Amino acid sequence: MINIAVLGYGTVGSGVIEVLNKNGESINERANKEIKVKYVLDLRDFPGDPVQELIVHDYNTIVNDPEVQIIVEVMGGVNPAYSFVKEALEKGKSVCTSNKELVAKHGAELLALAKEKKVNFLFEASVGGGIPIIRPLNQSLTADEIQEITGILNGTTNYILTKMTNEGLEFNEVLKEAQERGYAERNPEADIEGYDACRKIAILTSLAYGMQVDYEDIYTEGITKITDADIKYAKALNASIKILGTSKKNGDKVFAMVAPMLINSEHPLYSVNDVFNAIFVKGNVLGDVMFYGRGAGKLPTASAVVADVVDAAKHVGTNIMTIWSSKKLRLSDIKEYNTKFLVRLSGDETENELLVKELFGEVTRVKAEDVSGEYAFITPLITEGEYKEKAEKLNNIIGMIRVAF
Amino acid sequence: MINIAVLGYGTVGSGVIEVLNKNGESINERANKEIKVKYVLDLRDFPGDPVQELIVHDYNTIVNDPEVQIIVEVMGGVNPAYSFVKEALEKGKSVCTSNKELVAKHGAELLALAKEKKVNFLFEASVGGGIPIIRPLNQSLTADEIQEITGILNGTTNYILTKMTNEGLEFNEVLKEAQERGYAERNPEADIEGYDACRKIAILTSLAYGMQVDYEDIYTEGITKITDADIKYAKALNASIKILGTSKKNGDKVFAMVAPMLINSEHPLYSVNDVFNAIFVKGNVLGDVMFYGRGAGKLPTASAVVADVVDAAKHVGTNIMTIWSSKKLRLSDIKEYNTKFLVRLSGDETENELLVKELFGEVTRVKAEDVSGEYAFITPLITEGEYKEKAEKLNNIIGMIRVAF
Repeated sequence: MINIAVLGYGTVGSGVIEVLNKNGESINERANKEIKVKYVLDLRDFPGDPVQELIVHDYNTIVNDPEVQIIVEVMGGVNPAYSFVKEALEKGKSVCTSNKELVAKHGAELLALAKEKKVNFLFEASVGGGIPIIRPLNQSLTADEIQEITGILNGTTNYILTKMTNEGLEFNEVLKEAQERGYAERNPEADIEGYDACRKIAILTSLAYGMQVDYEDIYTEGITKITDADIKYAKALNASIKILGTSKKNGDKVFAMVAPMLINSEHPLYSVNDVFNAIFVKGNVLGDVMFYGRGAGKLPTASAVVADVVDAAKHVGTNIMTIWSSKKLRLSDIKEYNTKFLVRLSGDETENELLVKELFGEVTRVKAEDVSGEYAFITPLITEGEYKEKAEKLNNIIGMIRVAF
Repeated sequence: MINIAVLGYGTVGSGVIEVLNKNGESINERANKEIKVKYVLDLRDFPGDPVQELIVHDYNTIVNDPEVQIIVEVMGGVNPAYSFVKEALEKGKSVCTSNKELVAKHGAELLALAKEKKVNFLFEASVGGGIPIIRPLNQSLTADEIQEITGILNGTTNYILTKMTNEGLEFNEVLKEAQERGYAERNPEADIEGYDACRKIAILTSLAYGMQVDYEDIYTEGITKITDADIKYAKALNASIKILGTSKKNGDKVFAMVAPMLINSEHPLYSVNDVFNAIFVKGNVLGDVMFYGRGAGKLPTASAVVADVVDAAKHVGTNIMTIWSSKKLRLSDIKEYNTKFLVRLSGDETENELLVKELFGEVTRVKAEDVSGEYAFITPLITEGEYKEKAEKLNNIIGMIRVAF
């Protein structure tokens, strides 16, 4: 038997208890021992809920109990999660977490500590919810050098963009509706500004290259400026707009970015809609693979957390090797990154054509149904730096989205 | 350092050597030791190829060399692969294989032997080529009870069906072209009759339920009867025809089947085209996940084999638990399986309508562009047994495909 404790009885925490109750028998078989929840840490009480008898309010009760071998941290946020997790590892307990902020910020340090203590720090649920991606990156794609990771990493923004596409609505209308339906938070900034996706691509990039990627270094652009007109241009191009977290290796350079991008139907992420997430990985021998599923939600996320618990239970006394050193991976300056841009200018063809040609050379003109009074075009492949320089010479830009085809 | 031997210097075997040469540095880092190929077993010699100095013709040289700790079996076929692998495991060597026939037939026995000898029997490349699916099923989806596995498991047939769909060609024309381009074997039976997909869904189902599924028990139907007219009906229904290997759990019953099926754009497998493979898994808490990539090919398959070698190298002296007992899983009789059928009858409406209504009740009439002189309809949800019984009363069936929506 192995005793575990769950820190936080919120959405994911209660999901973990539910999954363990529902599938206990097969989970114990997979773990090859009985998994028993000894404590649940929460500030609140839950009278009437069977969990009440497990509730403790003081973390010391848990961390000082030598019977507890695995701690599930599903509180979220860096503090106090960080100090709780660190103390647990120091005391020889494995930790399974769904906390992307914690992993993005302190992953390397906590992995090193786990290794030193011969325990495990596992975080499958921190990226892609229920989608297996951390373990595959770490244990399955080991024969490859990773050339690219690109993902739809946030369900809320994918839902919003899908709904804008299908129903011809503007961003604010869809956001409001998503908030009413519980698909977006009342304070939606972390999702719509791309911060959530940024932490996730930081984690994936750190794992792909075995070094620390600081999420603060990743250029991040949200979806708040996407309009119905942009969607119409996407449709005219047989493309869709997705907010992608991406990192690419180009020789010795690694570029990382979160931004809305146009992808066409050739791209495996093209048809990933609604709240679904998917992560596309390109290996230098494997070619393209993609992992698809529900990137959030109580039970899918809990499924990934409990799978980590099973793994930790199977590896008591043994550290599962994860290569992610604290050495900083210096991302290349995004200014050197090559891409194409869909640019929308106010005014018509006569006003814009000459200046655009002078600045960008031959461009591809794009017209969309029901959009008038503007001039839209796709640039040739240029660097972000070049684009910025040229764009500064235009005072009538009303929209810009990167084009990934 | 860890010495390995490769059995078979064919497509996959030479791919394994190529991957180890190309990515040796990162592979050794992931394995935490240097992986060295000591022998390559092949009946042939390869004068001028650097591999020549590793070539041996006698398996005894390899299996009796105590320095060899991992054996890569990429010969294919059950014999002599089975006796070679068994002997290797008995002598305390781990085995990594891409051989689906061997795994489908002897997986349970070889896993038990590996466990007894504290070594490993790994077979990621046996299903889905480079797509990580065996390890995710075994190690990531451990919190779930698997309710369904459905996959596009054969690249050749998916290529043929995609090409028929895109170019309006008949099966035989596309097969011929695929053979000329090397996408289909000169003897294509294993692919086009569904035998290859059958072995793969047998392996996946065995792993999902931890018991032996005999592939001989799986109802298997190939794509040789699919015509351009069928494709036209699919288009009329906004659907596509895919040959799917599927197993579903329904209470205590497990059904498994390989057959062409109509899926619509709601299904994650709908847009998996050309030689790509994808495996869709439904867990009772996780919901839907999908794994997508190249299901065959020298380097993608070799990537999966080498990832297994890395895993074996990391686990010298420790068996990685895989639940797949030799206890036979009795599949339920396919006659009890519920589905819908697209049925095509020769003759027109007046000749068929009354009899069809009498037999099947209310059906959905389907018409396709450029197809005439026949009467096509989709049945209500009925069992395979009921369908068969009713179909026997019709002497003018010119086509039938199952409908999965």
